[in-house]
Amino acid sequence: MTIENTSSNKAFGGWHKQYRHPSSTLSCDMQFAIYLPPQASESTPVPVLYWLSGLTCTDENFMQKGGAQRMAAELGIAIVAPDTSPRGDNIADDDAYDLGQGAGFYVNATQSPWAKHYQMYDYINEELPELIKSTFPVNDKWSIAGHSMGGHGAIMMALRTPEKYASASAFSPIVNPINCPWGEKAFSAYLGDDKADWREYDSTELLRKSSTQIPMLIDQGLADNFLAEQLKPQSLVAAATDKEYPLTYREHEGYDHSYYFISSFIEDHLRFHAKHL
Amino acid sequence: MTIENTSSNKAFGGWHKQYRHPSSTLSCDMQFAIYLPPQASESTPVPVLYWLSGLTCTDENFMQKGGAQRMAAELGIAIVAPDTSPRGDNIADDDAYDLGQGAGFYVNATQSPWAKHYQMYDYINEELPELIKSTFPVNDKWSIAGHSMGGHGAIMMALRTPEKYASASAFSPIVNPINCPWGEKAFSAYLGDDKADWREYDSTELLRKSSTQIPMLIDQGLADNFLAEQLKPQSLVAAATDKEYPLTYREHEGYDHSYYFISSFIEDHLRFHAKHL
Repeated sequence: MTIENTSSNKAFGGWHKQYRHPSSTLSCDMQFAIYLPPQASESTPVPVLYWLSGLTCTDENFMQKGGAQRMAAELGIAIVAPDTSPRGDNIADDDAYDLGQGAGFYVNATQSPWAKHYQMYDYINEELPELIKSTFPVNDKWSIAGHSMGGHGAIMMALRTPEKYASASAFSPIVNPINCPWGEKAFSAYLGDDKADWREYDSTELLRKSSTQIPMLIDQGLADNFLAEQLKPQSLVAAATDKEYPLTYREHEGYDHSYYFISSFIEDHLRFHAKHL
Repeated sequence: MTIENTSSNKAFGGWHKQYRHPSSTLSCDMQFAIYLPPQASESTPVPVLYWLSGLTCTDENFMQKGGAQRMAAELGIAIVAPDTSPRGDNIADDDAYDLGQGAGFYVNATQSPWAKHYQMYDYINEELPELIKSTFPVNDKWSIAGHSMGGHGAIMMALRTPEKYASASAFSPIVNPINCPWGEKAFSAYLGDDKADWREYDSTELLRKSSTQIPMLIDQGLADNFLAEQLKPQSLVAAATDKEYPLTYREHEGYDHSYYFISSFIEDHLRFHAKHL
Protein backbone atom coordinates (compact mmCIF):
# COMPACT_ATOMS: atom_id res chain seq x y z
CA MET A 1 0.00 0.00 0.00
CA THR A 2 1.49 3.32 -1.05
CA ILE A 3 0.34 6.54 0.51
CA GLU A 4 1.63 9.91 -0.63
CA ASN A 5 1.76 13.07 1.46
CA THR A 6 0.74 15.98 -0.82
CA SER A 7 0.61 18.93 1.59
CA SER A 8 1.50 19.87 5.16
CA ASN A 9 0.55 22.97 7.14
CA LYS A 10 1.31 23.57 10.79
CA ALA A 11 -1.83 24.65 12.65
CA PHE A 12 -2.36 25.21 16.38
CA GLY A 13 0.88 23.41 17.16
CA GLY A 14 -0.18 20.30 15.21
CA TRP A 15 -0.27 19.45 11.53
CA HIS A 16 -2.86 19.52 8.78
CA LYS A 17 -1.78 17.07 6.09
CA GLN A 18 -3.29 15.80 2.84
CA TYR A 19 -2.62 12.36 1.40
CA ARG A 20 -3.36 10.41 -1.77
CA HIS A 21 -3.63 6.64 -1.83
CA PRO A 22 -4.98 3.93 -4.11
CA SER A 23 -8.27 2.66 -2.67
CA SER A 24 -8.95 -1.03 -3.31
CA THR A 25 -12.56 -0.56 -2.19
CA LEU A 26 -13.25 2.27 -4.63
CA SER A 27 -10.88 1.11 -7.40
CA CYS A 28 -9.41 4.60 -7.76
CA ASP A 29 -6.99 7.00 -6.10
CA MET A 30 -8.45 8.94 -3.20
CA GLN A 31 -7.42 12.03 -1.28
CA PHE A 32 -8.05 12.64 2.41
CA ALA A 33 -6.92 15.16 5.02
CA ILE A 34 -5.86 14.55 8.59
CA TYR A 35 -5.30 16.98 11.43
CA LEU A 36 -2.79 15.60 13.92
CA PRO A 37 -2.88 17.48 17.22
CA PRO A 38 0.41 18.34 18.96
CA GLN A 39 -0.11 15.49 21.45
CA ALA A 40 -0.01 12.79 18.75
CA SER A 41 3.12 10.63 18.89
CA GLU A 42 4.02 6.95 18.76
CA SER A 43 4.18 6.89 22.55
CA THR A 44 0.92 8.83 22.98
CA PRO A 45 -1.46 7.80 20.20
CA VAL A 46 -4.62 9.92 20.04
CA PRO A 47 -8.29 9.13 19.32
CA VAL A 48 -9.79 9.97 15.94
CA LEU A 49 -12.87 11.92 14.89
CA TYR A 50 -13.96 11.03 11.36
CA TRP A 51 -15.66 13.97 9.66
CA LEU A 52 -17.95 13.34 6.68
CA SER A 53 -18.70 16.36 4.50
CA GLY A 54 -21.77 17.32 2.52
CA LEU A 55 -22.70 17.50 -1.15
CA THR A 56 -20.03 18.97 -3.51
CA CYS A 57 -17.34 18.98 -0.79
CA THR A 58 -13.87 17.44 -0.85
CA ASP A 59 -11.51 16.79 2.06
CA GLU A 60 -10.72 20.53 2.09
CA ASN A 61 -13.93 22.35 3.01
CA PHE A 62 -14.17 21.34 6.64
CA MET A 63 -10.44 21.64 7.26
CA GLN A 64 -10.35 25.18 5.84
CA LYS A 65 -13.68 26.53 7.09
CA GLY A 66 -14.77 24.43 10.07
CA GLY A 67 -12.46 26.01 12.64
CA ALA A 68 -12.06 22.63 14.37
CA GLN A 69 -8.28 22.50 14.77
CA ARG A 70 -8.11 24.84 17.76
CA MET A 71 -10.23 22.60 19.97
CA ALA A 72 -8.83 19.36 18.47
CA ALA A 73 -5.37 20.61 19.51
CA GLU A 74 -6.58 21.49 22.99
CA LEU A 75 -8.35 18.14 23.50
CA GLY A 76 -5.78 15.96 21.72
CA ILE A 77 -8.06 14.52 19.03
CA ALA A 78 -7.05 13.75 15.45
CA ILE A 79 -9.55 14.62 12.72
CA VAL A 80 -9.79 12.70 9.44
CA ALA A 81 -11.73 14.28 6.55
CA PRO A 82 -12.24 11.97 3.55
CA ASP A 83 -13.58 12.99 0.16
CA THR A 84 -17.32 12.64 -0.48
CA SER A 85 -17.12 10.20 -3.43
CA PRO A 86 -14.71 8.45 -5.74
CA ARG A 87 -13.16 10.96 -8.16
CA GLY A 88 -11.55 10.91 -11.59
CA ASP A 89 -12.05 11.28 -15.30
CA ASN A 90 -12.92 7.60 -15.68
CA ILE A 91 -15.37 7.49 -12.77
CA ALA A 92 -19.13 7.59 -13.45
CA ASP A 93 -20.59 11.05 -12.89
CA ASP A 94 -23.71 13.15 -13.40
CA ASP A 95 -24.14 16.81 -14.32
CA ALA A 96 -26.25 17.46 -11.21
CA TYR A 97 -24.51 18.48 -7.99
CA ASP A 98 -26.44 15.90 -5.98
CA LEU A 99 -25.49 12.71 -7.84
CA GLY A 100 -22.16 11.19 -8.82
CA GLN A 101 -18.83 12.78 -7.97
CA GLY A 102 -19.09 14.84 -4.79
CA ALA A 103 -22.32 13.07 -3.87
CA GLY A 104 -21.50 9.49 -2.89
CA PHE A 105 -24.05 9.45 -0.04
CA TYR A 106 -21.85 7.00 1.90
CA VAL A 107 -23.58 3.90 0.49
CA ASN A 108 -22.34 0.81 -1.37
CA ALA A 109 -23.89 1.20 -4.82
CA THR A 110 -25.38 -1.91 -6.44
CA GLN A 111 -26.55 -0.39 -9.72
CA SER A 112 -24.83 0.35 -13.03
CA PRO A 113 -22.88 2.56 -13.75
CA TRP A 114 -22.23 3.33 -10.08
CA ALA A 115 -21.43 -0.02 -8.49
CA LYS A 116 -17.86 -0.28 -9.81
CA HIS A 117 -16.52 2.69 -7.82
CA TYR A 118 -19.24 4.04 -5.51
CA GLN A 119 -18.59 1.92 -2.41
CA MET A 120 -18.25 4.77 0.05
CA TYR A 121 -19.79 2.91 2.99
CA ASP A 122 -17.07 0.28 2.97
CA TYR A 123 -14.38 2.84 2.20
CA ILE A 124 -15.23 5.06 5.17
CA ASN A 125 -16.20 2.33 7.60
CA GLU A 126 -13.53 -0.26 6.74
CA GLU A 127 -10.66 0.64 4.42
CA LEU A 128 -9.88 4.17 5.53
CA PRO A 129 -9.78 3.49 9.30
CA GLU A 130 -7.39 0.58 8.67
CA LEU A 131 -5.17 2.86 6.63
CA ILE A 132 -5.28 5.60 9.27
CA LYS A 133 -4.47 3.14 12.06
CA SER A 134 -1.52 1.66 10.21
CA THR A 135 -0.10 5.04 9.15
CA PHE A 136 -0.57 7.55 11.98
CA PRO A 137 -0.09 7.64 15.78
CA VAL A 138 -3.75 7.04 16.62
CA ASN A 139 -5.42 4.66 19.06
CA ASP A 140 -8.53 2.47 18.69
CA LYS A 141 -11.05 5.04 19.87
CA TRP A 142 -13.07 6.63 17.08
CA SER A 143 -16.04 8.91 16.84
CA ILE A 144 -17.81 10.13 13.74
CA ALA A 145 -19.44 13.41 12.73
CA GLY A 146 -20.61 15.17 9.60
CA HIS A 147 -22.66 17.83 7.88
CA SER A 148 -25.80 17.45 5.75
CA MET A 149 -25.15 14.42 3.47
CA GLY A 150 -22.17 13.78 5.75
CA GLY A 151 -24.41 14.03 8.81
CA HIS A 152 -26.50 11.28 7.25
CA GLY A 153 -23.32 9.27 6.70
CA ALA A 154 -22.07 9.75 10.26
CA ILE A 155 -25.30 8.87 12.05
CA MET A 156 -26.11 6.02 9.67
CA MET A 157 -22.68 4.43 10.13
CA ALA A 158 -22.83 4.85 13.90
CA LEU A 159 -26.23 3.14 13.95
CA ARG A 160 -25.12 0.30 11.66
CA THR A 161 -21.82 -0.37 13.46
CA PRO A 162 -22.15 1.09 16.95
CA GLU A 163 -19.32 -1.14 18.16
CA LYS A 164 -16.91 0.95 16.10
CA TYR A 165 -17.76 4.41 17.38
CA ALA A 166 -17.71 5.98 20.84
CA SER A 167 -20.12 8.73 19.81
CA ALA A 168 -21.68 10.39 16.77
CA SER A 169 -22.71 13.94 15.96
CA ALA A 170 -24.02 15.96 13.05
CA PHE A 171 -24.83 19.42 11.80
CA SER A 172 -27.97 19.70 9.68
CA PRO A 173 -28.06 15.97 8.80
CA ILE A 174 -30.31 14.26 6.26
CA VAL A 175 -31.84 11.84 8.77
CA ASN A 176 -34.56 10.22 6.67
CA PRO A 177 -33.15 10.02 3.12
CA ILE A 178 -35.78 7.53 1.95
CA ASN A 179 -38.34 10.32 2.41
CA CYS A 180 -36.65 13.37 0.88
CA PRO A 181 -35.77 14.42 -2.70
CA TRP A 182 -31.97 14.24 -2.27
CA GLY A 183 -32.14 10.76 -0.79
CA GLU A 184 -34.79 9.42 -3.15
CA LYS A 185 -32.76 10.53 -6.17
CA ALA A 186 -29.45 9.17 -4.90
CA PHE A 187 -30.78 5.92 -3.43
CA SER A 188 -32.76 5.01 -6.53
CA ALA A 189 -29.67 5.62 -8.69
CA TYR A 190 -27.19 3.86 -6.42
CA LEU A 191 -29.39 1.15 -4.88
CA GLY A 192 -32.20 0.52 -7.37
CA ASP A 193 -35.94 0.32 -6.83
CA ASP A 194 -36.22 -2.01 -3.86
CA LYS A 195 -36.87 0.22 -0.88
CA ALA A 196 -35.88 -2.54 1.51
CA ASP A 197 -32.31 -1.83 0.38
CA TRP A 198 -32.75 1.89 1.00
CA ARG A 199 -33.79 1.35 4.61
CA GLU A 200 -30.40 -0.13 5.44
CA TYR A 201 -28.94 3.35 4.93
CA ASP A 202 -31.73 5.41 6.53
CA SER A 203 -30.91 6.73 10.00
CA THR A 204 -34.52 7.00 11.12
CA GLU A 205 -35.26 3.41 10.07
CA LEU A 206 -32.00 2.16 11.59
CA LEU A 207 -32.57 3.92 14.90
CA ARG A 208 -36.04 2.35 15.18
CA LYS A 209 -34.42 -1.09 14.91
CA SER A 210 -31.31 -0.36 16.98
CA SER A 211 -30.42 -2.53 19.96
CA THR A 212 -27.17 -0.78 20.96
CA GLN A 213 -27.07 2.87 21.97
CA ILE A 214 -24.26 5.36 21.55
CA PRO A 215 -24.35 9.05 22.50
CA MET A 216 -25.49 11.36 19.70
CA LEU A 217 -25.57 15.13 19.29
CA ILE A 218 -27.33 16.96 16.44
CA ASP A 219 -27.33 20.71 15.83
CA GLN A 220 -29.79 22.23 13.39
CA GLY A 221 -30.12 25.85 12.24
CA LEU A 222 -33.67 27.14 11.97
CA ALA A 223 -32.85 29.43 9.01
CA ASP A 224 -31.57 26.44 7.01
CA ASN A 225 -33.10 26.49 3.50
CA PHE A 226 -33.08 22.69 3.37
CA LEU A 227 -34.70 22.05 6.73
CA ALA A 228 -38.30 21.33 5.79
CA GLU A 229 -37.86 19.51 2.49
CA GLN A 230 -34.58 17.61 2.83
CA LEU A 231 -33.39 17.31 6.43
CA LYS A 232 -36.50 16.50 8.48
CA PRO A 233 -34.76 16.07 11.84
CA GLN A 234 -38.08 15.47 13.60
CA SER A 235 -38.26 12.00 12.02
CA LEU A 236 -35.14 10.96 13.89
CA VAL A 237 -36.03 12.84 17.06
CA ALA A 238 -39.40 11.07 17.21
CA ALA A 239 -37.77 7.67 16.74
CA ALA A 240 -35.19 8.50 19.42
CA THR A 241 -37.87 9.61 21.84
CA ASP A 242 -39.79 6.36 21.31
CA LYS A 243 -36.71 4.28 22.06
CA GLU A 244 -35.28 6.54 24.76
CA TYR A 245 -32.19 6.77 22.57
CA PRO A 246 -29.45 9.10 23.97
CA LEU A 247 -29.83 11.76 21.27
CA THR A 248 -29.37 15.43 22.13
CA TYR A 249 -31.06 17.54 19.45
CA ARG A 250 -30.58 21.31 19.50
CA GLU A 251 -32.19 23.98 17.31
CA HIS A 252 -30.51 27.34 16.68
CA GLU A 253 -32.48 30.42 15.73
CA GLY A 254 -31.16 32.31 12.69
CA TYR A 255 -28.42 29.87 11.65
CA ASP A 256 -28.29 28.52 8.10
CA HIS A 257 -26.76 25.50 6.33
CA SER A 258 -23.27 27.00 5.93
CA TYR A 259 -19.87 26.53 7.50
CA TYR A 260 -20.53 29.72 9.48
CA PHE A 261 -23.04 27.61 11.42
CA ILE A 262 -20.64 24.68 11.77
CA SER A 263 -17.76 26.83 12.98
CA SER A 264 -20.02 28.49 15.56
CA PHE A 265 -20.72 25.19 17.34
CA ILE A 266 -17.87 22.87 16.39
CA GLU A 267 -16.29 23.39 19.81
CA ASP A 268 -19.36 21.83 21.43
CA HIS A 269 -19.09 18.81 19.15
CA LEU A 270 -15.41 18.27 19.87
CA ARG A 271 -16.02 18.54 23.62
CA PHE A 272 -18.95 16.11 23.29
CA HIS A 273 -16.82 13.51 21.51
CA ALA A 274 -13.88 14.08 23.90
CA LYS A 275 -16.10 12.98 26.79
CA HIS A 276 -16.65 9.61 25.08
CA LEU A 277 -13.26 9.00 23.48
CA MET B 1 -25.19 56.19 -2.10
CA THR B 2 -26.77 52.80 -2.62
CA ILE B 3 -25.47 49.79 -0.81
CA GLU B 4 -26.85 46.31 -1.43
CA ASN B 5 -26.76 43.42 1.03
CA THR B 6 -25.95 40.28 -0.97
CA SER B 7 -25.57 37.61 1.74
CA SER B 8 -26.10 37.11 5.47
CA ASN B 9 -24.95 34.26 7.70
CA LYS B 10 -25.34 34.08 11.44
CA ALA B 11 -22.04 33.22 13.12
CA PHE B 12 -21.15 33.09 16.82
CA GLY B 13 -24.31 34.98 17.69
CA GLY B 14 -23.46 37.83 15.30
CA TRP B 15 -23.74 38.26 11.55
CA HIS B 16 -21.42 37.85 8.59
CA LYS B 17 -22.76 39.97 5.73
CA GLN B 18 -21.59 40.83 2.24
CA TYR B 19 -22.41 44.08 0.48
CA ARG B 20 -21.98 45.65 -2.96
CA HIS B 21 -21.73 49.39 -3.47
CA PRO B 22 -20.62 51.81 -6.18
CA SER B 23 -17.23 53.23 -5.22
CA SER B 24 -16.62 56.80 -6.33
CA THR B 25 -12.93 56.46 -5.51
CA LEU B 26 -12.46 53.36 -7.67
CA SER B 27 -15.09 54.20 -10.30
CA CYS B 28 -16.57 50.71 -10.13
CA ASP B 29 -18.80 48.52 -7.97
CA MET B 30 -17.06 46.92 -5.02
CA GLN B 31 -17.88 44.08 -2.66
CA PHE B 32 -16.90 43.89 0.99
CA ALA B 33 -17.76 41.71 3.98
CA ILE B 34 -18.48 42.74 7.55
CA TYR B 35 -18.75 40.67 10.70
CA LEU B 36 -21.01 42.34 13.23
CA PRO B 37 -20.61 40.85 16.71
CA PRO B 38 -23.71 40.21 18.83
CA GLN B 39 -22.96 43.33 20.92
CA ALA B 40 -23.35 45.71 17.94
CA SER B 41 -26.47 47.88 18.12
CA GLU B 42 -27.38 51.53 17.64
CA SER B 43 -27.17 52.03 21.40
CA THR B 44 -23.88 50.14 21.75
CA PRO B 45 -21.78 50.80 18.64
CA VAL B 46 -18.63 48.68 18.44
CA PRO B 47 -15.07 49.37 17.29
CA VAL B 48 -13.89 48.12 13.89
CA LEU B 49 -10.91 46.05 12.80
CA TYR B 50 -10.15 46.50 9.10
CA TRP B 51 -8.61 43.36 7.61
CA LEU B 52 -6.63 43.64 4.37
CA SER B 53 -6.08 40.39 2.49
CA GLY B 54 -3.20 39.20 0.35
CA LEU B 55 -2.63 38.58 -3.36
CA THR B 56 -5.50 36.88 -5.26
CA CYS B 57 -7.92 37.19 -2.31
CA THR B 58 -11.40 38.74 -2.22
CA ASP B 59 -13.47 39.71 0.81
CA GLU B 60 -14.23 36.01 1.35
CA ASN B 61 -10.92 34.30 2.15
CA PHE B 62 -10.36 35.73 5.61
CA MET B 63 -14.00 35.52 6.61
CA GLN B 64 -14.20 31.85 5.62
CA LYS B 65 -10.76 30.64 6.71
CA GLY B 66 -9.41 33.06 9.30
CA GLY B 67 -11.45 31.81 12.25
CA ALA B 68 -11.70 35.36 13.61
CA GLN B 69 -15.42 35.55 14.35
CA ARG B 70 -15.30 33.57 17.60
CA MET B 71 -12.99 36.05 19.31
CA ALA B 72 -14.56 39.09 17.60
CA ALA B 73 -17.89 37.99 19.10
CA GLU B 74 -16.35 37.52 22.53
CA LEU B 75 -14.56 40.89 22.48
CA GLY B 76 -17.29 42.87 20.70
CA ILE B 77 -15.28 43.98 17.66
CA ALA B 78 -16.64 44.32 14.12
CA ILE B 79 -14.40 43.13 11.27
CA VAL B 80 -14.50 44.65 7.79
CA ALA B 81 -12.83 42.75 4.94
CA PRO B 82 -12.63 44.68 1.66
CA ASP B 83 -11.60 43.26 -1.70
CA THR B 84 -7.94 43.52 -2.74
CA SER B 85 -8.44 45.60 -5.91
CA PRO B 86 -11.07 47.09 -8.17
CA ARG B 87 -12.85 44.34 -10.12
CA GLY B 88 -14.76 44.01 -13.37
CA ASP B 89 -14.62 43.19 -17.04
CA ASN B 90 -13.82 46.79 -17.94
CA ILE B 91 -11.10 47.22 -15.31
CA ALA B 92 -7.42 47.03 -16.33
CA ASP B 93 -5.89 43.66 -15.48
CA ASP B 94 -2.83 41.50 -16.05
CA ASP B 95 -2.46 37.76 -16.58
CA ALA B 96 -0.07 37.46 -13.64
CA TYR B 97 -1.48 36.83 -10.16
CA ASP B 98 0.62 39.61 -8.66
CA LEU B 99 -0.52 42.56 -10.78
CA GLY B 100 -3.93 43.99 -11.62
CA GLN B 101 -7.17 42.51 -10.27
CA GLY B 102 -6.58 40.83 -6.92
CA ALA B 103 -3.29 42.69 -6.53
CA GLY B 104 -4.04 46.37 -5.89
CA PHE B 105 -1.22 46.71 -3.31
CA TYR B 106 -3.23 49.37 -1.45
CA VAL B 107 -1.67 52.28 -3.38
CA ASN B 108 -3.10 55.15 -5.47
CA ALA B 109 -1.89 54.35 -8.98
CA THR B 110 -0.58 57.23 -11.08
CA GLN B 111 0.29 55.34 -14.26
CA SER B 112 -1.75 54.24 -17.28
CA PRO B 113 -3.74 51.98 -17.55
CA TRP B 114 -4.03 51.62 -13.77
CA ALA B 115 -4.70 55.14 -12.50
CA LYS B 116 -8.37 55.27 -13.51
CA HIS B 117 -9.50 52.56 -11.07
CA TYR B 118 -6.58 51.47 -8.90
CA GLN B 119 -6.93 53.94 -6.02
CA MET B 120 -7.02 51.38 -3.23
CA TYR B 121 -5.22 53.58 -0.69
CA ASP B 122 -7.95 56.19 -0.74
CA TYR B 123 -10.68 53.57 -0.96
CA ILE B 124 -9.53 51.71 2.17
CA ASN B 125 -8.35 54.70 4.15
CA GLU B 126 -11.12 57.18 3.25
CA GLU B 127 -14.19 56.04 1.34
CA LEU B 128 -14.82 52.66 2.93
CA PRO B 129 -14.57 53.79 6.57
CA GLU B 130 -17.03 56.61 5.84
CA LEU B 131 -19.43 54.13 4.30
CA ILE B 132 -19.04 51.71 7.23
CA LYS B 133 -19.59 54.47 9.76
CA SER B 134 -22.73 55.75 8.05
CA THR B 135 -24.23 52.27 7.54
CA PHE B 136 -23.46 50.11 10.58
CA PRO B 137 -23.57 50.46 14.39
CA VAL B 138 -19.85 51.14 14.81
CA ASN B 139 -17.96 53.78 16.76
CA ASP B 140 -14.92 55.88 15.85
CA LYS B 141 -12.28 53.47 17.07
CA TRP B 142 -10.53 51.55 14.31
CA SER B 143 -7.59 49.24 14.08
CA ILE B 144 -6.10 47.65 10.99
CA ALA B 145 -4.56 44.28 10.22
CA GLY B 146 -3.69 42.16 7.23
CA HIS B 147 -1.80 39.30 5.63
CA SER B 148 1.12 39.42 3.17
CA MET B 149 0.25 42.16 0.64
CA GLY B 150 -2.50 43.10 3.10
CA GLY B 151 0.01 43.18 5.94
CA HIS B 152 1.92 45.72 3.87
CA GLY B 153 -1.31 47.66 3.41
CA ALA B 154 -2.20 47.61 7.10
CA ILE B 155 1.19 48.66 8.46
CA MET B 156 1.73 51.20 5.71
CA MET B 157 -1.65 52.88 6.30
CA ALA B 158 -1.13 52.88 10.06
CA LEU B 159 2.26 54.57 9.59
CA ARG B 160 0.92 57.15 7.12
CA THR B 161 -2.20 58.04 9.11
CA PRO B 162 -1.53 56.98 12.71
CA GLU B 163 -4.25 59.36 13.91
CA LYS B 164 -6.85 57.06 12.34
CA TYR B 165 -5.85 53.75 13.93
CA ALA B 166 -5.55 52.61 17.53
CA SER B 167 -3.24 49.72 16.61
CA ALA B 168 -1.97 47.72 13.65
CA SER B 169 -0.99 44.10 13.16
CA ALA B 170 0.05 41.75 10.40
CA PHE B 171 0.75 38.17 9.49
CA SER B 172 3.69 37.63 7.12
CA PRO B 173 3.65 41.23 5.80
CA ILE B 174 5.64 42.63 2.88
CA VAL B 175 7.40 45.30 4.93
CA ASN B 176 9.89 46.65 2.41
CA PRO B 177 8.14 46.46 -0.98
CA ILE B 178 10.63 48.78 -2.67
CA ASN B 179 13.24 46.04 -2.14
CA CYS B 180 11.43 42.85 -3.15
CA PRO B 181 10.23 41.38 -6.48
CA TRP B 182 6.49 41.65 -5.71
CA GLY B 183 6.80 45.28 -4.66
CA GLU B 184 9.18 46.32 -7.42
CA LYS B 185 6.89 44.88 -10.07
CA ALA B 186 3.70 46.39 -8.67
CA PHE B 187 5.12 49.78 -7.71
CA SER B 188 6.80 50.33 -11.07
CA ALA B 189 3.53 49.48 -12.85
CA TYR B 190 1.25 51.50 -10.56
CA LEU B 191 3.59 54.36 -9.56
CA GLY B 192 6.14 54.71 -12.37
CA ASP B 193 9.91 54.91 -12.22
CA ASP B 194 10.48 57.59 -9.58
CA LYS B 195 11.42 55.70 -6.44
CA ALA B 196 10.65 58.73 -4.30
CA ASP B 197 7.00 57.93 -4.99
CA TRP B 198 7.51 54.30 -3.98
CA ARG B 199 8.89 55.23 -0.57
CA GLU B 200 5.57 56.82 0.40
CA TYR B 201 4.11 53.30 0.43
CA ASP B 202 7.03 51.43 1.99
CA SER B 203 6.57 50.53 5.65
CA THR B 204 10.26 50.36 6.45
CA GLU B 205 10.87 53.81 4.92
CA LEU B 206 7.76 55.24 6.60
CA LEU B 207 8.66 53.87 10.02
CA ARG B 208 12.14 55.44 9.80
CA LYS B 209 10.49 58.84 9.28
CA SER B 210 7.58 58.38 11.70
CA SER B 211 6.96 60.87 14.47
CA THR B 212 3.83 59.27 15.97
CA GLN B 213 3.87 55.77 17.40
CA ILE B 214 1.02 53.26 17.53
CA PRO B 215 1.22 49.70 18.91
CA MET B 216 2.12 47.08 16.30
CA LEU B 217 2.18 43.29 16.32
CA ILE B 218 3.67 41.15 13.56
CA ASP B 219 3.63 37.34 13.38
CA GLN B 220 5.87 35.54 10.90
CA GLY B 221 6.10 31.83 10.16
CA LEU B 222 9.61 30.48 9.70
CA ALA B 223 8.53 27.87 7.12
CA ASP B 224 7.04 30.62 4.92
CA ASN B 225 8.23 30.14 1.31
CA PHE B 226 8.17 33.91 0.73
CA LEU B 227 10.10 34.91 3.83
CA ALA B 228 13.61 35.49 2.47
CA GLU B 229 12.84 36.92 -0.97
CA GLN B 230 9.59 38.87 -0.53
CA LEU B 231 8.74 39.60 3.10
CA LYS B 232 12.04 40.63 4.74
CA PRO B 233 10.62 41.45 8.17
CA GLN B 234 14.09 42.21 9.53
CA SER B 235 14.11 45.50 7.55
CA LEU B 236 11.17 46.77 9.58
CA VAL B 237 12.38 45.24 12.84
CA ALA B 238 15.74 47.00 12.46
CA ALA B 239 14.06 50.34 11.76
CA ALA B 240 11.74 49.84 14.76
CA THR B 241 14.66 48.99 17.03
CA ASP B 242 16.51 52.15 15.94
CA LYS B 243 13.47 54.32 16.72
CA GLU B 244 12.31 52.42 19.80
CA TYR B 245 9.05 51.93 17.95
CA PRO B 246 6.48 49.80 19.87
CA LEU B 247 6.61 46.84 17.48
CA THR B 248 6.24 43.29 18.80
CA TYR B 249 7.68 40.89 16.24
CA ARG B 250 7.23 37.15 16.77
CA GLU B 251 8.64 34.25 14.76
CA HIS B 252 6.91 30.85 14.68
CA GLU B 253 8.81 27.67 13.92
CA GLY B 254 7.21 25.44 11.26
CA TYR B 255 4.36 27.77 10.21
CA ASP B 256 3.88 28.69 6.55
CA HIS B 257 2.19 31.50 4.60
CA SER B 258 -1.32 29.98 4.70
CA TYR B 259 -4.56 30.65 6.53
CA TYR B 260 -3.70 27.71 8.79
CA PHE B 261 -1.03 30.01 10.23
CA ILE B 262 -3.40 32.97 10.47
CA SER B 263 -6.14 30.99 12.18
CA SER B 264 -3.63 29.63 14.71
CA PHE B 265 -2.78 33.10 16.01
CA ILE B 266 -5.73 35.32 15.07
CA GLU B 267 -6.97 35.20 18.68
CA ASP B 268 -3.77 36.93 19.82
CA HIS B 269 -4.27 39.67 17.23
CA LEU B 270 -7.87 40.32 18.23
CA ARG B 271 -6.91 40.46 21.92
CA PHE B 272 -4.04 42.82 21.02
CA HIS B 273 -6.34 45.20 19.17
CA ALA B 274 -9.03 44.95 21.86
CA LYS B 275 -6.55 46.36 24.39
CA HIS B 276 -6.19 49.49 22.26
CA LEU B 277 -9.74 49.94 20.93
